[in-house]
Amino acid sequence: MKNLTHIDQQGQIRMVDISEKPRTFRLARARAILKAKKETIKLIRKNLLAKGDVLSTARIAGILAAKKTSQLIPLTHPLNLTNLSIDIELKKQKIILTASVKTVGQTGPDIEAITAAAIAAITIYDMVKAIDREMTIEKIQLIEKFGGKSGHYQRRGYPDK
Amino acid sequence: MKNLTHIDQQGQIRMVDISEKPRTFRLARARAILKAKKETIKLIRKNLLAKGDVLSTARIAGILAAKKTSQLIPLTHPLNLTNLSIDIELKKQKIILTASVKTVGQTGPDIEAITAAAIAAITIYDMVKAIDREMTIEKIQLIEKFGGKSGHYQRRGYPDK
Amino acid sequence: MKNLTHIDQQGQIRMVDISEKPRTFRLARARAILKAKKETIKLIRKNLLAKGDVLSTARIAGILAAKKTSQLIPLTHPLNLTNLSIDIELKKQKIILTASVKTVGQTGPDIEAITAAAIAAITIYDMVKAIDREMTIEKIQLIEKFGGKSGHYQRRGYPDK
Amino acid sequence: MKNLTHIDQQGQIRMVDISEKPRTFRLARARAILKAKKETIKLIRKNLLAKGDVLSTARIAGILAAKKTSQLIPLTHPLNLTNLSIDIELKKQKIILTASVKTVGQTGPDIEAITAAAIAAITIYDMVKAIDREMTIEKIQLIEKFGGKSGHYQRRGYPDK
Amino acid sequence: MKNLTHIDQQGQIRMVDISEKPRTFRLARARAILKAKKETIKLIRKNLLAKGDVLSTARIAGILAAKKTSQLIPLTHPLNLTNLSIDIELKKQKIILTASVKTVGQTGPDIEAITAAAIAAITIYDMVKAIDREMTIEKIQLIEKFGGKSGHYQRRGYPDK
Amino acid sequence: MKNLTHIDQQGQIRMVDISEKPRTFRLARARAILKAKKETIKLIRKNLLAKGDVLSTARIAGILAAKKTSQLIPLTHPLNLTNLSIDIELKKQKIILTASVKTVGQTGPDIEAITAAAIAAITIYDMVKAIDREMTIEKIQLIEKFGGKSGHYQRRGYPDK
Repeated sequence: MKNLTHIDQQGQIRMVDISEKPRTFRLARARAILKAKKETIKLIRKNLLAKGDVLSTARIAGILAAKKTSQLIPLTHPLNLTNLSIDIELKKQKIILTASVKTVGQTGPDIEAITAAAIAAITIYDMVKAIDREMTIEKIQLIEKFGGKSGHYQRRGYPDK
Repeated sequence: MKNLTHIDQQGQIRMVDISEKPRTFRLARARAILKAKKETIKLIRKNLLAKGDVLSTARIAGILAAKKTSQLIPLTHPLNLTNLSIDIELKKQKIILTASVKTVGQTGPDIEAITAAAIAAITIYDMVKAIDREMTIEKIQLIEKFGGKSGHYQRRGYPDK
Repeated sequence: MKNLTHIDQQGQIRMVDISEKPRTFRLARARAILKAKKETIKLIRKNLLAKGDVLSTARIAGILAAKKTSQLIPLTHPLNLTNLSIDIELKKQKIILTASVKTVGQTGPDIEAITAAAIAAITIYDMVKAIDREMTIEKIQLIEKFGGKSGHYQRRGYPDK
Repeated sequence: MKNLTHIDQQGQIRMVDISEKPRTFRLARARAILKAKKETIKLIRKNLLAKGDVLSTARIAGILAAKKTSQLIPLTHPLNLTNLSIDIELKKQKIILTASVKTVGQTGPDIEAITAAAIAAITIYDMVKAIDREMTIEKIQLIEKFGGKSGHYQRRGYPDK
Repeated sequence: MKNLTHIDQQGQIRMVDISEKPRTFRLARARAILKAKKETIKLIRKNLLAKGDVLSTARIAGILAAKKTSQLIPLTHPLNLTNLSIDIELKKQKIILTASVKTVGQTGPDIEAITAAAIAAITIYDMVKAIDREMTIEKIQLIEKFGGKSGHYQRRGYPDK
Repeated sequence: MKNLTHIDQQGQIRMVDISEKPRTFRLARARAILKAKKETIKLIRKNLLAKGDVLSTARIAGILAAKKTSQLIPLTHPLNLTNLSIDIELKKQKIILTASVKTVGQTGPDIEAITAAAIAAITIYDMVKAIDREMTIEKIQLIEKFGGKSGHYQRRGYPDK
């Protein structure tokens, strides 16, 4: 039976020991979806057209959060990220946020990508909450992973959204 | 037409000015759902029974993240939180995380509650990802809010899960 | 002869004791100027026209830095900032950044305003350095202060720039 | 025509991808000047002679800020700094702060050096502001850079101050 | 039988709810002792006489750590500290560090004082470890507490050291 | 005569320059002891038996603090830790906390291990202080070190506790 890698024999949490893993190129992508009312999305689109900075604020919050991941998620390893971007797509009733993170290190940046997508989505929520308190963040998930022993992983159904 | 409170006339982001709001008691609750395979949930339950600390790790990560919110979400105000708790419920194929946050301050801790729930969920994801990479975090949403001008808000459908 | 308030009889640093000061409304404004080549400013302006986010990145970096001031500048007191904005003006050969910070607290947010202006300016420097390494940040100074015993202060020569 | 490296085709900010750059030794030096009244400088010198710790406080604040740069300046990469020092020189009407930063990494520590010099200068301002609110921080600039593709750069006019 | 205040009926950790406590003046003092070889203390004393900054570095590290306590110790409440100082005394074979912390808030700063004393002691250890790796930090303890329901507490045996 | 490595000729603090040291595997272990009344230890043991999370909270606080060391202790170098664990043993009148830290880097993680042990101990103190304010943290010390020029070091008397 499979075991939880972050848990030792006594059920206690532990960091996974990556001391002997090689430093290699690794990449991860994760996605979050912010569901909102049509008119909320319209306002955001209007802000975008007016050169407003709702979406850039979300992008930067996501980028900074990825760099802060080892402080936020207790058992993650500090990583020197070498590239970070947050892509944001406006649909009629939702906003799709995709975080791509690269590193050259001993483990992959999947949690960094997930954290970046989640925090970017919460940032938009925060800026828009006064007009639409009922927005929901959906489907935070890892969609791609490259590097390390497990090779290339792409989530089923992706890139279909 | 309604406007984005965090955006000025030029479309530029700004913090909402709360200087003249009174310091009052305020509360917020938010929820996140981590969907996982049945056997993943079973492993987590087994860890719990064995006095393991997967769930406490998530709770602490969520609590610390709530206290860090003003650094993570750019336009939020620093708040002196007076109480914080993360309730975690294991269901057959999902884990329900509910964060409750209190403050005595000039604005409510809704983003703190949402951030706590999201980070607690990502923390479980991190500890279990080696056995189930396809978990998804769903339905991050505000479910209750109390205090301030807008009074008591309870999300429709809640407490049904 | 005047003394350094942050230094005790032995010349050792100390925080100023504000325990008995009242919580009142206080405001501070500070400015930084980034001097650059004409063509550098042109590129930034072009980015702005193209709805790019160089300036919003600087604004957000400044806002986050103001909230982080008590960690950056050792003897400052933690303050619950109630409002923060960074105004950025493009001139032919320079960029003028003005940070305005408000709080309701026991001391004023002058160092928060200065830190915000400085970090916003360094953020622009960072994004543009590949094309103009010789930009200089000039005239970081406090330009206005309101609240507390010392009343309203406005720097001489201001608002002339 | 030159382009902004931190900006993509759509004008959106992005981190520069350094994944394929080699890890090499890199160094940067930056300077800030704090202009103050003669008597202010005298007080600081007196503190120094009395074994006071105004200048050490500034040095430590600058060193800690350099290590925090990737959290302060959104598009910078986390770097493992291998050496850091802040040199502080008292002149009649000004204080010259020079930060030297080394790393073995995939990009240079120029923004770290600039941030260290700026924060060290603001720290002195903070400790002395009660007696001289009109101090100004001037000429924050990169003065030297070594390592990476661009070779050795030394700013014109330097070391003349 | 007494209960653990930070633990609920299920044995799960929780923050203590201080929402209804009044904001009052509170103070705490804590101490740590760094035991070292005589010659190590001599070197530190020599540095002090030479206007060196070993002790100021420790003081500043302690002050910054106190302000960071709510991020370091999971169940502590964020507090707006109003005064902070670290007193350091050199004895023949030990260094006595005493941290005094004040706040106007809903709970007392005892953990802030303990954290400040501990981190200041570790900072000296770090700077001196190359010559004396066997130093030990002893007797980290709360020595005084004032404010709140429990009144004035002074540890037995104190001020004897 | 030996010199302080973190101090230059003028007695000013400086970081040790590790730019030319090789990246190798390094490990450190440190210990802290929390002395408490028998009944306090009993309550903690009861919490443990009840699957409570007092000890996991301490473990996580220690792990996060180790990753934050370069921000807490001014002259330490940022390190990419590759493994971290905190072992906690309950005795009749004391709790023994042992932090083990690994890295692949240019310097060893001794201060990280000491910081982790100290913060984990303070975390237990915080959770239990309402019933036993007089607990003391004793004997924070480095007990083992491996890697780097100085080879393998094991403290005398260890593993005897």
